[in-house]
Amino acid sequence: MIESTANKQVKNLIQLMKKSRTRREEGLFVVEGVRMFREVSTERLVRTYVSEGFLEKEENRAVLKDIPYEVMTDKVFTTVSDTQTPQGVLCVVRQKEYTLDEMLKKEHPHLMILENLQDPGNLGTIFRTAEGAGVDGIIMSADTVDIYNPKTVRSTMGSLYRMPFSYEKDLDEVLRKVKERQVAVYAAHLKGRQNYYQEDYTKGCAFLIGNEGNGLTDHLAEQADTYIRIPMEGQVESLNAAVAAAILMYEVKRQRG
Amino acid sequence: MIESTANKQVKNLIQLMKKSRTRREEGLFVVEGVRMFREVSTERLVRTYVSEGFLEKEENRAVLKDIPYEVMTDKVFTTVSDTQTPQGVLCVVRQKEYTLDEMLKKEHPHLMILENLQDPGNLGTIFRTAEGAGVDGIIMSADTVDIYNPKTVRSTMGSLYRMPFSYEKDLDEVLRKVKERQVAVYAAHLKGRQNYYQEDYTKGCAFLIGNEGNGLTDHLAEQADTYIRIPMEGQVESLNAAVAAAILMYEVKRQRG
Repeated sequence: MIESTANKQVKNLIQLMKKSRTRREEGLFVVEGVRMFREVSTERLVRTYVSEGFLEKEENRAVLKDIPYEVMTDKVFTTVSDTQTPQGVLCVVRQKEYTLDEMLKKEHPHLMILENLQDPGNLGTIFRTAEGAGVDGIIMSADTVDIYNPKTVRSTMGSLYRMPFSYEKDLDEVLRKVKERQVAVYAAHLKGRQNYYQEDYTKGCAFLIGNEGNGLTDHLAEQADTYIRIPMEGQVESLNAAVAAAILMYEVKRQRG
Repeated sequence: MIESTANKQVKNLIQLMKKSRTRREEGLFVVEGVRMFREVSTERLVRTYVSEGFLEKEENRAVLKDIPYEVMTDKVFTTVSDTQTPQGVLCVVRQKEYTLDEMLKKEHPHLMILENLQDPGNLGTIFRTAEGAGVDGIIMSADTVDIYNPKTVRSTMGSLYRMPFSYEKDLDEVLRKVKERQVAVYAAHLKGRQNYYQEDYTKGCAFLIGNEGNGLTDHLAEQADTYIRIPMEGQVESLNAAVAAAILMYEVKRQRG
């Protein structure tokens, strides 16, 4: 039983939750809650922690099955937890990245390319929507917010386990490879003359989505094959990044039936 | 110059920011930042506050024009502000609600009806997207989160000033009136057999959007004319409420051209 926050494991857990650098160095991240615990595959599960209170209920013990775990006092668990009302179970999970080739293996790939997104909630929501829309991969610039941030992990609602993705230092190189595979690259941009729904997305397609405040850099936008626009009424100048991405992803899904 | 957080005006500002009850009783709310200040109409502007630091820059003084304001020390301003890096201007604004008749005045109204939404960011994003999609009104159940919550106000990006909306105690009565006006009522629902894009939204239409965790109550869902589904691949069971609303609103806009 872990009874003190001075415990070495507790200190490591807190580092893993707070610091993307620790997560990167150890190749690990933390997930919280019953649902996210249930959905993790056993080969990626490294360590499991539960609170005393959690163990008191039989249905909770059933969730654990034969998986080894450590117990913490409720007080220590609350200190470690990133949520206001902790469910009493969290685990350390191995990170997993995908190659561009894996994301391009289908005949008509559908990719989302994110440049410097900074809002953890937006990124998590994009993962969740992308799985729903049948996207084949999410490629992020190296300066995009860390997908393994606890808030982001939570807002993916489990899609993080299933959605292929990678962080890339050189998006120019990514776009070169994507275009070689005959995937058309679109950017939602003020210069776009066609509305997004006037293009044909039944072949391979990739969409560039830019930072929340500043949009796409000119350097990246210039590499798009086609500028498209999401029409906006009233005085709206732009949509939330996760909303814009969702509208585009679901237009692809609509067209592909 | 206001130099102390014990100042009566400061105390009232903090109450207005923190308590929906105070906002309701006084019929007021607080907005922060240069953009939101610029967009407020003069007849709704009640009081303006700036920080000492804000006044030092000429471009900031230009923003104020002839509008009367009170000055606070930077320290007091930071205490009052709801943001981590305050811009140095905030103001008290009169609330405004719309009647259902105003929202139904167009020949083919497009309405969104929200039941018990609880996430302030989601609600703000729905307002912003709704203005962009040309929605005619947002109707909310009385238990929906307060649109005048500072976080929600911020995430509307100014759409709050322009988007017609109302809180309603009796959604049954609202739906009766809406149907009388030949507006078709849709609910995104697991029971839906048609995909959302297979319906015709060129005539009047209203969409029911439910609570983030629990979806629509059976009572409200049963009053829909048609259940529709947003198709989802993988293991996704639902989409974020603001994302689902955005996909539906922009499908209406796409069909109406």
